[in-house]
Amino acid sequence: MSVAEEAMSDQSAVMRVLRGQAAVKPPVWLMRQAGRYLPEYRELRARASSFLDFCYDPRLASEATMQPVRRFGFDAAILFSDILVVPDALGVSVSFENGEGPRLAPVDTWERLLALKKEIDLSYLSPVFETISTVRAMLSGGTALIGFCGAPWTVASYMVAGRGSPDHASARLLAYRQPALFRDLVERLIEASIAYLGAQFEAGVDAVQIFDSWAGVLPPREFERWCFDPLRRIIAGVRRARPQAPIIAFARGAGGHLPRLAEASGADAIGLDTTIDLDFAAARVQSVKPVQGNLDPLALVAGGAALEAAVDDILAKLGRGPLIFNLGHGILPETPIGHVEQMIRRLRAS
Amino acid sequence: MSVAEEAMSDQSAVMRVLRGQAAVKPPVWLMRQAGRYLPEYRELRARASSFLDFCYDPRLASEATMQPVRRFGFDAAILFSDILVVPDALGVSVSFENGEGPRLAPVDTWERLLALKKEIDLSYLSPVFETISTVRAMLSGGTALIGFCGAPWTVASYMVAGRGSPDHASARLLAYRQPALFRDLVERLIEASIAYLGAQFEAGVDAVQIFDSWAGVLPPREFERWCFDPLRRIIAGVRRARPQAPIIAFARGAGGHLPRLAEASGADAIGLDTTIDLDFAAARVQSVKPVQGNLDPLALVAGGAALEAAVDDILAKLGRGPLIFNLGHGILPETPIGHVEQMIRRLRAS
Repeated sequence: MSVAEEAMSDQSAVMRVLRGQAAVKPPVWLMRQAGRYLPEYRELRARASSFLDFCYDPRLASEATMQPVRRFGFDAAILFSDILVVPDALGVSVSFENGEGPRLAPVDTWERLLALKKEIDLSYLSPVFETISTVRAMLSGGTALIGFCGAPWTVASYMVAGRGSPDHASARLLAYRQPALFRDLVERLIEASIAYLGAQFEAGVDAVQIFDSWAGVLPPREFERWCFDPLRRIIAGVRRARPQAPIIAFARGAGGHLPRLAEASGADAIGLDTTIDLDFAAARVQSVKPVQGNLDPLALVAGGAALEAAVDDILAKLGRGPLIFNLGHGILPETPIGHVEQMIRRLRAS
Repeated sequence: MSVAEEAMSDQSAVMRVLRGQAAVKPPVWLMRQAGRYLPEYRELRARASSFLDFCYDPRLASEATMQPVRRFGFDAAILFSDILVVPDALGVSVSFENGEGPRLAPVDTWERLLALKKEIDLSYLSPVFETISTVRAMLSGGTALIGFCGAPWTVASYMVAGRGSPDHASARLLAYRQPALFRDLVERLIEASIAYLGAQFEAGVDAVQIFDSWAGVLPPREFERWCFDPLRRIIAGVRRARPQAPIIAFARGAGGHLPRLAEASGADAIGLDTTIDLDFAAARVQSVKPVQGNLDPLALVAGGAALEAAVDDILAKLGRGPLIFNLGHGILPETPIGHVEQMIRRLRAS
């Protein structure tokens, strides 16, 4: 990033927090803010037949990215895409059944692993980069554009099982039974993620977030091997070409591991899930790195006094340090729009 | 408990650990050790038409309780029953569909809550107490008999939703939207649990375990209100009649809350789930109270070197203090019996 570019991106409140500055009123965006709780998203979504077609249509994906920013004035846009475009670009057949979640051709043997592309096919993902440059051109300098990818453990969990599963048993068993095979899969995902995030920066994102949504199911020894180490290496890999690249790490369910993520992963900011104690976060995480989070998405569904108490709590405990206000997990489709407005009013009034 | 009774129960290695003594080789039992991974259990289960009929048949339930003790020589038997017998005995219609999990008439309005029995009907649960006295008479003094109940948050999650749900959204939303209603439901479950556990001791259990299987989904403020406080009050309530009653608290996913559970809940021992870091457990939990856990059930499914490494790790980090060796979650139906034998050999050889 050139000095001029850096100065420009520092026009946005999100980028200033990522560089360690506390804001008088914390900037805000919401995980999955472009999505089904918005009527304008549901209308837009109906124009593409499949979910992946939608992700790969720069006109539709850029519009979906912009919708929540226009409606709510969020301080960041998050690229509309999916973590499973990475296996898709590695040659895995990926589809999304309506209401059923993703389906992938499972990668659970050496034969299937060796049939994948050696490197991620970035030309296959050119619609994603076109979406990024389109959105960046539409956004004001005050609004950050955040790209993302899934962390290797989370993406591998889908790839091994061929679908989502509550206990991630398929990937966890493979890691126990055939550690060399699982290691090789994770290595490919580390390299693919470095290339993919680098290309997102090239296309115009201001920052990226790495989502390890399923980090919370792993015993500590496995967390170290399959979550912490890959995350650290992806961050270092992206920084080889872009030493200042701003990176947010969100390892859901990682609880007691967060101080170590803040100290040693290289991430610029640490995402806090809903279960993280705010005093612990202030003392052990925000004291080291800026934090992002962690309103309970169900408090946003509930609204009313419960929502206001939850917002106030976060501001009281984390608002004086560098904080990007967000949810602790993705916004739920049943969230009333009026409650998002209530949340923003509460934040702005604070 | 009389001095004579206490002396007798101290014949068992589990009870000595619960009183704070470290064992040369830690005693062992497994959560859900009576269950579907055993061929003799599957044969027995086929003799009752419904799962609840099975639980309420003292001959079948006592045999199921004894089977794993006979086969593996575990140091404790755990009562074969289910946490949902409590709502059943409060007048909620409960059934178990094959392969579908439990179904309950939802309790999500004041009308439905007020239609419940004011107090738990212990006479309805007399088959459970008969199972306990039958098993206690069959066991040697060296084997502890452990009773149990579900913690109010976990039981309420099923009662409000009418079924299991991965995110427990129904109960969590009710707690946000109608805190007085949810509070009343939890209060009833606290009183019911105190009465039910007291009756289990009366019938002959040596210790009880309180399972808060879904504690991990709650934000800290909610954890305090719906997990910690009810647990503390149940323990205090049981101790009014039995000041020495040994009680194990297992709050799955409670991570950073465990030191507080050890220090302030009153529990004699703290269950550790699979995700708990062993150094943290040694320094912050076992330094205060005996611990129980925390082998990954998937390591037991995997067997081989992964299993032995996981067993060795627990022994190295927690084996010198008071430890009851166990899983960090229930044994899985697909667990090979040979791997349970491998685990026991490794423990005995240690």
